[in-house]
Amino acid sequence: MKLQPVPLKSVKLHDHYLSFLTELCGESVIPYSIKRCDETGRIASFKLDWKPGMPNAPHVFWDSDFAKVLEGMALDLMLHPSDERRKELDEYVDLVVSAQQPDGYLNTHFTVVEPENRWSQLFVNHELYCAGHLMEAAVAHFRATGSRKFLDCMARYADYIASVFGTEDGKLKGYPGHEEIELALCKLADATGNRKYSDLAKYFIDQRGQSPNYFEMEFKRSNAQLPPNYTMDLQAHKPVREQREAVGHAVRAGYLYTGMAEIADRYNDAELLETCKALFENITERRMYVTGGIGSSISGEKFTEDFDLPNAFSYAESCASIALCLFAQRMLNITGESKYAELIELELYSGATAGIARTGTEFFYVNLLEKDKRPMAWGHLSAERQPWFDCSCCPTNYCRFLPQLSQFAFSCKPDGLQINIPVDAAIELPLEGGRTLKATITGNYPYANTFRVTLDEDCPDAEIAMRVPSWLCNPIAWFNGKIVPIDRSGWLRYRRDWRKGDFLDVSHELKPRCLFADPRVSDDAGKVALALGPVIYAVESVDNGDDLSTLLLPVNQEFELVPAAGLPNGTIAIKASGYRESAAVSGKLYSTARPQRVPCTITAIPYALWGNRGPSSMRVWIRALY
Amino acid sequence: MKLQPVPLKSVKLHDHYLSFLTELCGESVIPYSIKRCDETGRIASFKLDWKPGMPNAPHVFWDSDFAKVLEGMALDLMLHPSDERRKELDEYVDLVVSAQQPDGYLNTHFTVVEPENRWSQLFVNHELYCAGHLMEAAVAHFRATGSRKFLDCMARYADYIASVFGTEDGKLKGYPGHEEIELALCKLADATGNRKYSDLAKYFIDQRGQSPNYFEMEFKRSNAQLPPNYTMDLQAHKPVREQREAVGHAVRAGYLYTGMAEIADRYNDAELLETCKALFENITERRMYVTGGIGSSISGEKFTEDFDLPNAFSYAESCASIALCLFAQRMLNITGESKYAELIELELYSGATAGIARTGTEFFYVNLLEKDKRPMAWGHLSAERQPWFDCSCCPTNYCRFLPQLSQFAFSCKPDGLQINIPVDAAIELPLEGGRTLKATITGNYPYANTFRVTLDEDCPDAEIAMRVPSWLCNPIAWFNGKIVPIDRSGWLRYRRDWRKGDFLDVSHELKPRCLFADPRVSDDAGKVALALGPVIYAVESVDNGDDLSTLLLPVNQEFELVPAAGLPNGTIAIKASGYRESAAVSGKLYSTARPQRVPCTITAIPYALWGNRGPSSMRVWIRALY
Repeated sequence: MKLQPVPLKSVKLHDHYLSFLTELCGESVIPYSIKRCDETGRIASFKLDWKPGMPNAPHVFWDSDFAKVLEGMALDLMLHPSDERRKELDEYVDLVVSAQQPDGYLNTHFTVVEPENRWSQLFVNHELYCAGHLMEAAVAHFRATGSRKFLDCMARYADYIASVFGTEDGKLKGYPGHEEIELALCKLADATGNRKYSDLAKYFIDQRGQSPNYFEMEFKRSNAQLPPNYTMDLQAHKPVREQREAVGHAVRAGYLYTGMAEIADRYNDAELLETCKALFENITERRMYVTGGIGSSISGEKFTEDFDLPNAFSYAESCASIALCLFAQRMLNITGESKYAELIELELYSGATAGIARTGTEFFYVNLLEKDKRPMAWGHLSAERQPWFDCSCCPTNYCRFLPQLSQFAFSCKPDGLQINIPVDAAIELPLEGGRTLKATITGNYPYANTFRVTLDEDCPDAEIAMRVPSWLCNPIAWFNGKIVPIDRSGWLRYRRDWRKGDFLDVSHELKPRCLFADPRVSDDAGKVALALGPVIYAVESVDNGDDLSTLLLPVNQEFELVPAAGLPNGTIAIKASGYRESAAVSGKLYSTARPQRVPCTITAIPYALWGNRGPSSMRVWIRALY
Repeated sequence: MKLQPVPLKSVKLHDHYLSFLTELCGESVIPYSIKRCDETGRIASFKLDWKPGMPNAPHVFWDSDFAKVLEGMALDLMLHPSDERRKELDEYVDLVVSAQQPDGYLNTHFTVVEPENRWSQLFVNHELYCAGHLMEAAVAHFRATGSRKFLDCMARYADYIASVFGTEDGKLKGYPGHEEIELALCKLADATGNRKYSDLAKYFIDQRGQSPNYFEMEFKRSNAQLPPNYTMDLQAHKPVREQREAVGHAVRAGYLYTGMAEIADRYNDAELLETCKALFENITERRMYVTGGIGSSISGEKFTEDFDLPNAFSYAESCASIALCLFAQRMLNITGESKYAELIELELYSGATAGIARTGTEFFYVNLLEKDKRPMAWGHLSAERQPWFDCSCCPTNYCRFLPQLSQFAFSCKPDGLQINIPVDAAIELPLEGGRTLKATITGNYPYANTFRVTLDEDCPDAEIAMRVPSWLCNPIAWFNGKIVPIDRSGWLRYRRDWRKGDFLDVSHELKPRCLFADPRVSDDAGKVALALGPVIYAVESVDNGDDLSTLLLPVNQEFELVPAAGLPNGTIAIKASGYRESAAVSGKLYSTARPQRVPCTITAIPYALWGNRGPSSMRVWIRALY
């Protein structure tokens, strides 16, 4: 029995971190993004009244930006029903639907700016990508409102796409230059009950990278010169089943792999699932920052080589972490393996949420792991949180990512609940046979040494699986106060007739961990990263003064946990003893005398919260004494 | 009595490194550069027959490229007189001179491509820069051949420039967007005996950065938006005398400061000299790689912030090191302070000669201090030595830099010789009063533990100053076999009636030094660089295998000196004991277990010679145990 994300309405988060972000989304991120979409022409573009010479020509990826906001609005509406917001959403949906062409096509750029180029340059344009995000928005709108208007519109669009693409004679044998539609088509198949949409997704995945290479043919047709490794940048250098290394544009890769996992699951495709597992392994054990960031190079926003993870020159796009999170979610729900849950919580507490300020209106596109006084190396991008970007995929992605946080924390099946992240929450999950599993989780996870799930009502013959994170130190589990064994699967799994008041506890020694990287990661060699549970820490100049490279952290010590100054209530800082080095000869840049050391205190805060207290320097990897 | 570079003909280098490069220049670098200049249209451009629509439109900086090659040819001709080469050079000179306009103007781009824009956009174009290099070439041609043709041509050009620029009414109050002409005009003044040319250089220097800012006015006129810090990028954000930090484009800065030193010297301008000293200090103690590389950022090829010296993402343009070398040479000859000689030898053995392969036909534009398997971060540039560049300033700069090496090693005054770098050489220096100082230096500096200067003939009442490098370990000096004291000035200075056979020895313990950077240099903290004398070392994968970040070097050890495998005869490698780290848990990218260490041998070779044995990884800064 496969797992699914829990229905959005079945969980109310109560913790101080994830619930804060979920609420922030509806209150701030979404209204702000609508405003920016409006100001920049991203909404008006759906009126299709743009004419050459006018400003704000609809850009090839604009549809996707607004689609992500609409998806977020729909998801947020499920969490916070509101007639007013429903009305606003429906009006936007009407506008989007009005842009559909008689044949089902729906893309503002290729309808008004360059209609002659429809489907002509998949390798560089974003038509199928935009279609995918619109489909996801339509499914969310349907789930939130029950209205089929948007859903039917996008089903028509998908029907039209299916008439254009395929292996049959007369069809284009193409596939997306920017993947995303694969996973969206699977959602569309679920919402409509029509398997032809997942068949189309399967086609896109199976066709990708086949020979002769479609993108190479497109390049040839357009008389452009194929940049080196271009098909690899788009994960189309060989059939996806033959791919074992995560390559190319990291966001594209994450969405593709998510779609591959969906198809592997739906079509019981063991070979494809094996590919997904290998790619996940390659990413997480070779090409991922300790924060969960992926895609280390600005050049193509892409994966580079194994262990090439520079900190001060990281790229690690926010969207790429979100995409990896989506991939891990599918893998978790297919396989039930706890390592996928562990990656998800790493992203939720570090990589995927570092990109949004506590205000909800400022963002990182690029996530540095080390920032000194240096001006940002990556041209137009900034090392300070920014209000918006010309390519504003990351802010709009948060609109639809944050309302889903509970669906990463909890999975379900018809007869039970899986607690992937035992975060404080109230759960009221409908099970098959009209049962409801009602439970409460308490413990201030990940910041306390005990967390507990308590049944709030009787529930016969149901399974509860609670994850026991591998990073727990000396964990002990109790059922109704009696110690029970923990096996190595990473799950406490109980099927029984639950009684109101039953409880499962896990306690452990809450203490920071020193993480070492494989020393082939050049920038991390000789350094440690501090972690407390799934939370990766960083030192920031606000707490430690400038010149963070002068700090030395002995790894053998008892760390102290203290409230973090100037950060949201409940945020825990790690306090450590260390040393500060200075040049032996003052004023000499280079000297044969070794630097001098004086004892000092080192304070680390959660990485995801850096840059929320004004301009600062920051580093995740601290020079270690070991 | 001020110092001058020795006349080129007065020194014959005999060492294995500098003389190799000097010979390589005439045999390989210059003929190769002529070929590339020819192929790319840089020579034909002086025919002024380019028309719109034709390929190879003369570029704004092409004149400077060919000028540098001509200067190199002339310098090389002084070292290696040859009728054939003289004829070839004269033909090129004829061609260049033929491009002079009736008013004296000489610039191919602004004569045939956009004549309407002459002098209109100094902030971005390179007119005065090209003029400067042509003047230097003309002076060298005059010195080499005695012909005044090119010199007079460039004097006419300078006369014309002086009629265009100045503070007088009706003149443009502008100055170069790319400095260089200042130092060239001083050379022109010397060669012609006409002080008006150094007056013009003084004007350019005094006017630079005055208010209202000339570049800002140019931007305003062209309706362009001034990029942030643009005037600072060109060292024109304030009057040069008020500048205390080296900012902006590093090559421009180096040439400007060289010109400033020239003017400070010629006009006895103590304030300007003080500025030069402060800028030199700021560069060398805050903003310079241990190799002598400067300008750490590709963004504007410029200086950034104090201690911002990333190794794997260094820029450190070859031309910038050459420019710094020129600046240090002027400061040395003005002040006699040994620290300037020390910087010169650092550049000659490391930073300024790393950019040229031992073949003489491949070059680094960018000098990385650390290269892993990562693709080059800096776009079109490569981490492998390249045959040429679209902007090929560095290869052509070597054409004229390498023949001058002896002039960095030795300075002179009317009554004596100053040995800045006691490199093996035969010297026959004319002194005033018809005397000749004839001496030989032996000892295989910098690679042996004794070096000696021996008088080959009597020479009455002359001074010999021999530098005693500050990095010598326990040096002892002898005069004719008797120990003499060494004071802290850095010079052994003797004035006497020299007899044939007199000799000065300096001996020392030749052993590698471990250099530590100020730990505020983020990338160097916890690491050491190995140096042997002025030679900065690097570890290369050819000798040490890949994954150089896994190497650990204990600093307290006796290093071994061995011949370097696969590098030119005489090259010394440093052999050390160290450790290689590997991940504690195989296949885990991050782990709480500290990496494991196994003993290994570490071999370092001179940094300037890396990348001469096929593709490789390299790093200067090695993780240290101390």
